[in-house]
Amino acid sequence: MMDLALKLETTSTIPLHKQLYEEIRQAILSGRLESGQRMPSTRALAKTLGLSRATVLFSYDQLLSEGYLQTIPASGTFVACQLPDALLQATSPPISPASPSCIELSTYGAALATVNLPPPPGQKPLINFSCYGRPAFDEFPIQIWRRLLSRARCSSTAILDYPADPLGYKPLREAIARYLTQSRAVRCEPSQVAIVNGSQQALDLIARLFLNRGDRVVMEDPGYTEARYIFQVQGAELLAVPVDRSGLVMEQLSALTTPVKLVYVTPSHQFPTGAVLSLPRRLALLAWAQQTGTIILEDDYDSEFRYDERPIPALQGLTNSDSVIYIGTFSKVMFPSLRMGYLVIPQQLISVVARAKWLVDRQSPLLEQHALADFINEGHLESHIRRMRILYAQRRRTLVQALTQHLGNRVTIIGENAGMNALVKFHTDQNDEEIIAQAEQKGVELISARSCYMNAEYGNGKFLLGCTDLNSEAIQEGVWHLAQILKA
Amino acid sequence: MMDLALKLETTSTIPLHKQLYEEIRQAILSGRLESGQRMPSTRALAKTLGLSRATVLFSYDQLLSEGYLQTIPASGTFVACQLPDALLQATSPPISPASPSCIELSTYGAALATVNLPPPPGQKPLINFSCYGRPAFDEFPIQIWRRLLSRARCSSTAILDYPADPLGYKPLREAIARYLTQSRAVRCEPSQVAIVNGSQQALDLIARLFLNRGDRVVMEDPGYTEARYIFQVQGAELLAVPVDRSGLVMEQLSALTTPVKLVYVTPSHQFPTGAVLSLPRRLALLAWAQQTGTIILEDDYDSEFRYDERPIPALQGLTNSDSVIYIGTFSKVMFPSLRMGYLVIPQQLISVVARAKWLVDRQSPLLEQHALADFINEGHLESHIRRMRILYAQRRRTLVQALTQHLGNRVTIIGENAGMNALVKFHTDQNDEEIIAQAEQKGVELISARSCYMNAEYGNGKFLLGCTDLNSEAIQEGVWHLAQILKA
Repeated sequence: MMDLALKLETTSTIPLHKQLYEEIRQAILSGRLESGQRMPSTRALAKTLGLSRATVLFSYDQLLSEGYLQTIPASGTFVACQLPDALLQATSPPISPASPSCIELSTYGAALATVNLPPPPGQKPLINFSCYGRPAFDEFPIQIWRRLLSRARCSSTAILDYPADPLGYKPLREAIARYLTQSRAVRCEPSQVAIVNGSQQALDLIARLFLNRGDRVVMEDPGYTEARYIFQVQGAELLAVPVDRSGLVMEQLSALTTPVKLVYVTPSHQFPTGAVLSLPRRLALLAWAQQTGTIILEDDYDSEFRYDERPIPALQGLTNSDSVIYIGTFSKVMFPSLRMGYLVIPQQLISVVARAKWLVDRQSPLLEQHALADFINEGHLESHIRRMRILYAQRRRTLVQALTQHLGNRVTIIGENAGMNALVKFHTDQNDEEIIAQAEQKGVELISARSCYMNAEYGNGKFLLGCTDLNSEAIQEGVWHLAQILKA
Repeated sequence: MMDLALKLETTSTIPLHKQLYEEIRQAILSGRLESGQRMPSTRALAKTLGLSRATVLFSYDQLLSEGYLQTIPASGTFVACQLPDALLQATSPPISPASPSCIELSTYGAALATVNLPPPPGQKPLINFSCYGRPAFDEFPIQIWRRLLSRARCSSTAILDYPADPLGYKPLREAIARYLTQSRAVRCEPSQVAIVNGSQQALDLIARLFLNRGDRVVMEDPGYTEARYIFQVQGAELLAVPVDRSGLVMEQLSALTTPVKLVYVTPSHQFPTGAVLSLPRRLALLAWAQQTGTIILEDDYDSEFRYDERPIPALQGLTNSDSVIYIGTFSKVMFPSLRMGYLVIPQQLISVVARAKWLVDRQSPLLEQHALADFINEGHLESHIRRMRILYAQRRRTLVQALTQHLGNRVTIIGENAGMNALVKFHTDQNDEEIIAQAEQKGVELISARSCYMNAEYGNGKFLLGCTDLNSEAIQEGVWHLAQILKA
């Protein structure tokens, strides 16, 4: 045992029996004490180490109870024999780089390789146009939110427990149902509202609940890349239907000859073109879906930020059939790290969505649900949206004016006067990477719209400009830089 | 138009053009104005209604832009023809009950029918033994948590944005890596720690990433029902391997002749028996997994609440292979509605787990991640766990003493002196439903352990008793009631 150089520090705050236990354990795991090797008697070891016998006994007991040591009656104490030799070196070598082949992913897991993660944030650019859909964080009424969170925290210890319903906190579901009924003409009972972690989880849940591998899904083209990823990874076959200035081109949809399981649409403010699905097309889409037995997944993206006209009522409220599933999020009207969104589901699906949410992650965090219910019920949400609608309209105007002034006929602004982003096409010979790289040198960040197109080439020269979190000076300066780059 | 009885209120705060727009729109949608019907001229309608022509023009413009009306040049304004008649009644009738056959679920969705949701909470029972694993909420240092949340909220508006990494807030991942290294002998870099919404989401992500339909999963029997649901719904074939007082019976595992993709184990405190997987079996399990290329999913359930001995180090830390994926949660050591747990994953899986988390719900909420990092780093977590370890040990002792005193040989307490729940078997002729019903009448809530067994019959007479959120008086009174019931 002397060879083992057991390190015991009498001045340490760690009790000696724990130190001894740990030293012997390490010696066994690293192979310095070999499997089957006889241990000294407690008396002998105590003497050797200058410890009380009780200390050694205590350590041995622990090691015996954990199986590191074993006692053979009338023979003595030994390092356990069942310890496979191969594993005994486990704690000594550093973790070796794993061979990439040893863990095989599922079909779902393997399909994730096609998903592009957003790049990690680098140096903060001075002027960032790439965060389309990012709210103006400085304008969020953080003091009010803080007060409501504090109040919710004090309400009772029930807020610490699992919820009564995986679909969420009842008063929040009621508040959302009222809000949607009034502002979006959605027709629902609070029981049809399911609280989820942002619209992303809503999309994922619906994809899992309805799509088998090979099922066909219609996507708007161009469309929302992250939704496409979800359907793709789920194994769906994607069918692209183009959008024009009135949204999804219904003639092209009706012309499809293969059966479709689900149609994903962003009718309020088509992503990324900003087109509004016209009422006749809404009604035609509903009729087609009912006739063909197709599910419409209505992502009411950016419906809150229309600047010049009353929003067209949601598809969901225009039908009494069960064909529409409605998705909304608080990421844009509140802030993204809240991770709060909702589904409005037909009555017949309430139970299966509840089971899915329970199985997937039990519920969304409760504290925020309490605070958000108060935020809505006390009118803060509507007042914040009203303020942001004015602010974002101003910022969008500034962007459009700056683009027109500095770029003239070298830019086309695609889409309606609405929403949190603008889709633009630059008329230039430079390729997108060059433009992005040159902009970056000027401290301006840009993002290409190519990933929104099923055929990325159609997105060449097109960029998504977000300006909701940029002030007028930044927008003007950024566009000025772009003009210099595109001139060259 | 007079027949339409347009309701316009001049005293309303809603502008007249909006009222008029809404009234006409409703008339169209309800069918009172028919498709193709000619509308009166703006001049005529203004005169009829006693409004300014500008007001009527404004309403018509809105209705034209939204497609409710259409203009035929040199002819007039008409209710749009493209409105399919069938849908025009949409807003009048109440939502009719949907036919249950019209939405077909995916294989995953259909399999959810086998998942049992927890019953909605009824009248609060006086003494609730059914919440095994529920922390003592009254003891949670809510004031400290509140302070840390407030501090996190003030830190910067970056806390409102999407995170830099879907796997979580870096300082929290660092804090967890340190905590696990020190207290559980887990070997990891912070980059291997993935923040998820509780251990439930961890299980679900791993099931999706690795299991195809028909893949085989080994479950401890009895075992954790909610994990079984996840694997089942994912389409896995479940193989039951029994547990004894030293945990999973390795001989039975080694005897399996079919290839296994994944083994799910709760080695620290087997759920529900409380058995601790012995070190020799840990090493044997690791060797078997490496030899057969099987993934070990180590759910380190209840590892924090061992009362009489040092916890055995995690499986994850006993190997340098990539075969172990480690799962932990803050639901028990903090509180469940926090929805925060973590995975420790091999280096080679970091990227695919990040993609999956990004796709599934982007990230876990950020505010709590900030506060939790501080809670750990400032020592509050360890001190809270230490306090709860003492408290829960006392409560468990009280439970065991009361059971022994009042029930004597009519009860067997299964499992070790550890964890947040006890598994007991009542020796009685009464069936479980009778016992539960009679207990309920006395204000005592009980939960059967049957769902934990692959063959539910083996769980007959067995109950899971949670006592961590009950004080001594409640525990004793509850057991006294049980004794009366079982005597009868």
